[in-house]
Amino acid sequence: MRFTSEQRLDDDVLERSFALGDVPGVLWTSASAVAPAPLVLLGHPGGLDRMHPRVTARARACVAEGLAAATIELPWSGVRPRSAAADQARADVRRTLAAGQPVGDEIVDRLILPLVEASVPEWRAAIDALLLRPEIAGPVGFAGGVIAIGVRLARIEPRIAAALLFAGSFVPLGIIEEARRVTAPVHVLLQWDDEGNDRQRALDLFDAFGSTEKTLHANMGGHTGVPQFEGEASTRFLVRHLR
Amino acid sequence: MRFTSEQRLDDDVLERSFALGDVPGVLWTSASAVAPAPLVLLGHPGGLDRMHPRVTARARACVAEGLAAATIELPWSGVRPRSAAADQARADVRRTLAAGQPVGDEIVDRLILPLVEASVPEWRAAIDALLLRPEIAGPVGFAGGVIAIGVRLARIEPRIAAALLFAGSFVPLGIIEEARRVTAPVHVLLQWDDEGNDRQRALDLFDAFGSTEKTLHANMGGHTGVPQFEGEASTRFLVRHLR
Repeated sequence: MRFTSEQRLDDDVLERSFALGDVPGVLWTSASAVAPAPLVLLGHPGGLDRMHPRVTARARACVAEGLAAATIELPWSGVRPRSAAADQARADVRRTLAAGQPVGDEIVDRLILPLVEASVPEWRAAIDALLLRPEIAGPVGFAGGVIAIGVRLARIEPRIAAALLFAGSFVPLGIIEEARRVTAPVHVLLQWDDEGNDRQRALDLFDAFGSTEKTLHANMGGHTGVPQFEGEASTRFLVRHLR
Repeated sequence: MRFTSEQRLDDDVLERSFALGDVPGVLWTSASAVAPAPLVLLGHPGGLDRMHPRVTARARACVAEGLAAATIELPWSGVRPRSAAADQARADVRRTLAAGQPVGDEIVDRLILPLVEASVPEWRAAIDALLLRPEIAGPVGFAGGVIAIGVRLARIEPRIAAALLFAGSFVPLGIIEEARRVTAPVHVLLQWDDEGNDRQRALDLFDAFGSTEKTLHANMGGHTGVPQFEGEASTRFLVRHLR
């Protein structure tokens, strides 16, 4: 893990870009903390440069509550090499939606499952590397999307102590089956009237989680319109389970 | 409105029982407040004596946040005269559930709609009387169940500025239609695995609300197992809209 740039944000937040092998990432920590902080992995849909303002806002909220936050770029997104198969799957989704048709499970599987397979080992490698740093300690939380990545990570990675999951990306049926074996506390954010989201699939996924503590918070406001009070409730969920 | 007893709870809460005509009720206010407080009407399933500890806990949370809280007994419950028709409907529900059968809409309508018809005018009379008191001011919120009572009240009573609704009682289909005309902010609490609750009906009701701001919080834990963090989020919802 190699730091490539560093900047002090105007509040007490140190933002450092890093490379983990070929995978770029960003780490946000408190500039003044004396004790190692629990780690929140911030999920996103891919394209870190484009997502940077929104991910940074979520990272700041974590750091303000005594948590460290980090993210990595997804395979085939942003500056990383593209994949013909991923490009094809994305094109098929766009074409299907443009035709006003439902996106079938064959396309969903082709879009999401390779992404889960390729990215989850990278998130685990990021956990390995980040937990070696003196300013970071366990436990580890995952917060964001792609929701299927969060489910797989929560299922196979025992260091994940809490998962805050944003419903809003496609969910393969196989991932719903995997959710039955997730036992970490789960908090699902669902935008009720999000047109690009299959609400029933999200409810089926929530129902499937094997976790004793699972919470679903649904709101109006579209894909990017999560109300401020829900952002605060999400941070409280992470703090409750990680600190 | 006539006060029948008064006690100072150990914190800064004054609890007064009252009678409004034949309807008994309870009012909780801050013993030390100098300004009039917004009012929260605390809904419950009927039987105030039995419900008193749980309702009082919710009232204390309101008073601690600068709100006054009040409740009234439901028709045909507690010390109030019984109704043969209501007793019959309750018996039919029990018998149906004991036989492991779903409670059909005919029974639901017979159980809930007369209760809504009879109780909503009483809640409105309570608002009238309580708002005349110097220690209480608008706006008014409704918090609790019977959820159908909350929906009707929010639809026809313009003084209701926010409704915190507990899903967990039967919902007539006609009430779902009424919800489309509710515009006040709504926060619905749903216990996901509550056996006595029709989850799909609760989701249909949430979907129906016409409110621009509507939030659904679903959790594990059965009918009385709302987690503490959700109780806090509920109070914050009331404070956000009433104070």
